[in-house]
Amino acid sequence: MGPGQPVALSGDHAHYLFNVMRLQAGAFVSVFNGSDGEWQAEIAETGKRGGVAICRDQSAPQQNPPDVWLMFAPIKKARTDFIVEKAAEMGAARILPVQTQFTNSERLRQDRLQAHALEAAEQCGGTFVPPVDDLQPLSRVLDSWDHARRILWADESLVGAASTLAAAAPGPWAILTGPEGGFSPAERERLRALPFVTPVSLGPRILRADTAAVAALTLWQAHLGDWL
Amino acid sequence: MGPGQPVALSGDHAHYLFNVMRLQAGAFVSVFNGSDGEWQAEIAETGKRGGVAICRDQSAPQQNPPDVWLMFAPIKKARTDFIVEKAAEMGAARILPVQTQFTNSERLRQDRLQAHALEAAEQCGGTFVPPVDDLQPLSRVLDSWDHARRILWADESLVGAASTLAAAAPGPWAILTGPEGGFSPAERERLRALPFVTPVSLGPRILRADTAAVAALTLWQAHLGDWL
Repeated sequence: MGPGQPVALSGDHAHYLFNVMRLQAGAFVSVFNGSDGEWQAEIAETGKRGGVAICRDQSAPQQNPPDVWLMFAPIKKARTDFIVEKAAEMGAARILPVQTQFTNSERLRQDRLQAHALEAAEQCGGTFVPPVDDLQPLSRVLDSWDHARRILWADESLVGAASTLAAAAPGPWAILTGPEGGFSPAERERLRALPFVTPVSLGPRILRADTAAVAALTLWQAHLGDWL
Repeated sequence: MGPGQPVALSGDHAHYLFNVMRLQAGAFVSVFNGSDGEWQAEIAETGKRGGVAICRDQSAPQQNPPDVWLMFAPIKKARTDFIVEKAAEMGAARILPVQTQFTNSERLRQDRLQAHALEAAEQCGGTFVPPVDDLQPLSRVLDSWDHARRILWADESLVGAASTLAAAAPGPWAILTGPEGGFSPAERERLRALPFVTPVSLGPRILRADTAAVAALTLWQAHLGDWL
């Protein structure tokens, strides 16, 4: 995007702008593409099925999140949507749904979750939309893991280890949270033995999976991310 | 509660146990009253409108949260419910919905929110249910504030002050989060001038009100609460 550059408006966005809001040529809309910040664009062409807007001024610089991924085990639909929304809001750079031994769902509508991440960015004035991966088995993700990226593992069996995070090193990270019911004994054993995994406690109470994802992202952002 | 003590089962709980689950005399249920931990109780009488169970063994000790309240400005119904659920899960000792200048809702079903807090405790195996107050204007709450209780104010205009929390003193606290749109200039000015208020940043991104409540509770619990 840059001054004078045209932007195609299509699909749901076009429907909302032209049929719901009834915007006409000359009206301004905020646009972003995930890499060039937010721009004020002037509508030049409108139609039932789409239109074109011309970028005029940049209204916000591109703001990328720190290099932290969220890996989570999907749960019920509404709460899975919620986790994706919150991860996008809180500055996760990538979202990886993983299937653990206690995960119920075997399928996931990746396109629906990606749309949720986009909507969360739009709602919060963000300029970055984290990519949402397809569902993959946790075991396979760990098999091919780049050891340079540490994993912050929300280990529900642990109490009193928030201090380990204070001593953790900056760099690329991923947060891992489990499903309702937590991780299986075999999964725990494997995670405990991996040299790039740092377990962290989320307190003495049992948290729902969606709460754990937001809490773990908060701790990471406050200690190692861009909330400092 | 204590060994041999009878517990009356009524209302929704009785309906669920006797009509939905069709439990009979002799079956065991987990019960808690918010002050004596969790007990395994044996059903002694059943009926369409209620029944009685007898406490046998304590299955979990009472676990009270630290002395932290959550004050929040109610937003849309589903997200307000969510804030109450998360506050109960994360160990808030009391929940105070407050009306700020940018709060839309003027009414709140306190009984419905209290039921949500109870359900959250049940779902997570908690033994404490935070009381939910009626909606009150923030200005009035501040007028009669006990200065010994500090307020952790999630100030959306602030960036880079997570470190103030590291230096904060333990003791009674309340967390204050705003509505979508944040606090008004007059509210900010007053909050900034109050000696018992500590502002805190929740990062460079705009967070939805429900996210801010969970994130602020996380930071408090990790620095001053029982997550240590």
